[in-house]
Amino acid sequence: MSEALTFEHFDQAWTEKVLGKRGKKGIDAYLGIVATEFSAGRLVAGFDVTDEIVTMIGNIHGGCISALVDHVLGVVMYPVMPPRSWAATTEFKINLLAPVTNGRVEATAQIISMSKRLAVIRIDVENIVAAEEEGGEARRRLVAVAQGTSTIVAPRS
Amino acid sequence: MSEALTFEHFDQAWTEKVLGKRGKKGIDAYLGIVATEFSAGRLVAGFDVTDEIVTMIGNIHGGCISALVDHVLGVVMYPVMPPRSWAATTEFKINLLAPVTNGRVEATAQIISMSKRLAVIRIDVENIVAAEEEGGEARRRLVAVAQGTSTIVAPRS
Amino acid sequence: MSEALTFEHFDQAWTEKVLGKRGKKGIDAYLGIVATEFSAGRLVAGFDVTDEIVTMIGNIHGGCISALVDHVLGVVMYPVMPPRSWAATTEFKINLLAPVTNGRVEATAQIISMSKRLAVIRIDVENIVAAEEEGGEARRRLVAVAQGTSTIVAPRS
Amino acid sequence: MSEALTFEHFDQAWTEKVLGKRGKKGIDAYLGIVATEFSAGRLVAGFDVTDEIVTMIGNIHGGCISALVDHVLGVVMYPVMPPRSWAATTEFKINLLAPVTNGRVEATAQIISMSKRLAVIRIDVENIVAAEEEGGEARRRLVAVAQGTSTIVAPRS
Repeated sequence: MSEALTFEHFDQAWTEKVLGKRGKKGIDAYLGIVATEFSAGRLVAGFDVTDEIVTMIGNIHGGCISALVDHVLGVVMYPVMPPRSWAATTEFKINLLAPVTNGRVEATAQIISMSKRLAVIRIDVENIVAAEEEGGEARRRLVAVAQGTSTIVAPRS
Repeated sequence: MSEALTFEHFDQAWTEKVLGKRGKKGIDAYLGIVATEFSAGRLVAGFDVTDEIVTMIGNIHGGCISALVDHVLGVVMYPVMPPRSWAATTEFKINLLAPVTNGRVEATAQIISMSKRLAVIRIDVENIVAAEEEGGEARRRLVAVAQGTSTIVAPRS
Repeated sequence: MSEALTFEHFDQAWTEKVLGKRGKKGIDAYLGIVATEFSAGRLVAGFDVTDEIVTMIGNIHGGCISALVDHVLGVVMYPVMPPRSWAATTEFKINLLAPVTNGRVEATAQIISMSKRLAVIRIDVENIVAAEEEGGEARRRLVAVAQGTSTIVAPRS
Repeated sequence: MSEALTFEHFDQAWTEKVLGKRGKKGIDAYLGIVATEFSAGRLVAGFDVTDEIVTMIGNIHGGCISALVDHVLGVVMYPVMPPRSWAATTEFKINLLAPVTNGRVEATAQIISMSKRLAVIRIDVENIVAAEEEGGEARRRLVAVAQGTSTIVAPRS
């Protein structure tokens, strides 16, 4: 095992304001993305699958999952950056592994490398289906994996 | 220059049904994605930047652009596959180059390789701002580039 | 945690032939890549940093690391595919995290999703430096992370 | 068409020293990579397929192509950066499209976006086979496409 990554900053007060809150507008509000766990370098956030986002084929549009990945890539950075810094998602790559038809979609973002200018983050996206939704059997499946880079922009002096 | 890619199939009637139409629900309808040009292996589709998708910082959420990329990756495949085939976006990678604040966001998807089972597609995303929106100067800028893989699933016999 | 991935096939005899062996020619032989651990869906393989692969700047060329990633992406597939199948690396994405100047470079490849046609693999690349090489302090650092897709080609009947 | 990218710097003298030269050691020398064309933001470089790099299956190892991509990603940056800057390949993504068995492998790298800190580059890799090698028919085929990010490190003052 490589040395663990440690973080100089962690703005817990900021995470407490964000946890459990749904945005008021924008694509994250449309999807209903809510952060449910936050620690230094790690974020869990997701949304419930509603009829609105299921396509005619019966699955959710892949764009819902990639928008979630894009969202957590940015949000996971805020509490660990120096105050007033700004995080820009530079790039990411996503593999879509399985279709999602119901239940909840949850992304776990983990910062795996961080310098003054760049951070690299891995994201696991899971589909969680409760027993009653599937006729008796609860499920938790990996439905997408992603890896991305965030650029840290220092505050103007 | 490498040999040009040719396509055995092209369902023009399908493209004519899709062109100019906005979806009725789902993330593509939320964003207002509309296809405006279609030829064999090439698709142009985009959406207008509305107040709804602009964040507090004044830019659109990156998730809107990655959802557009995910969308065109699938749609560009349909007219060139054998009838009743199904295209699944396997993976893609996106670089976000510049923030978008207004105007229109337009993706051009081009299939650059296609076998029986897999296709590779490159996507350019541009931001087009009319002269009156920018105080006198029209602009067309590259704001994201992407590269992805689509898996072609043959119809069940 | 999502359900663990299980593998229908695992050709242990094949892995025993491969473990500890250096290729006779080709880029893997040039780098001196040797597999040191093999289990179903997981492979550890690496090479020692020699003067030959260190550039004028004092680091190894990034191409050595990407060639290692490409190599393990293929090799990890062989023992878990149906006999006589063939694995083609379809694509991968790599983030280079830190320069490597000495010691050993080791990649750990883990299959995280596998269907009849496609597998998705994550790779961690670490730099391991023994205490005597660094003047007293042994180190194990993550120097690259990758994510890729392998296409499984069934044997011709 | 988006506005063309322009470059403030272009060190033509440096490119003239590099063109046509094979490295003395390292993975680029092993492969025999030579730059054949250089202009601001664009580089063509490649290697000849030799018996040494062809595997038992009869194709070249994918690692040769990914090492070439990694190589051009760095080299294309040097003449367009401010003097004494340093380019670090941050990440790239590659799709391998077709096997290569003989002839020449040539990568064309094009910078498509460049700021003070980051550049995004697209790479086309082609396989060029002369008529006499293929029994009468010359060929030029796209065998890989890649997209990557280079970080520009300013010189220490």
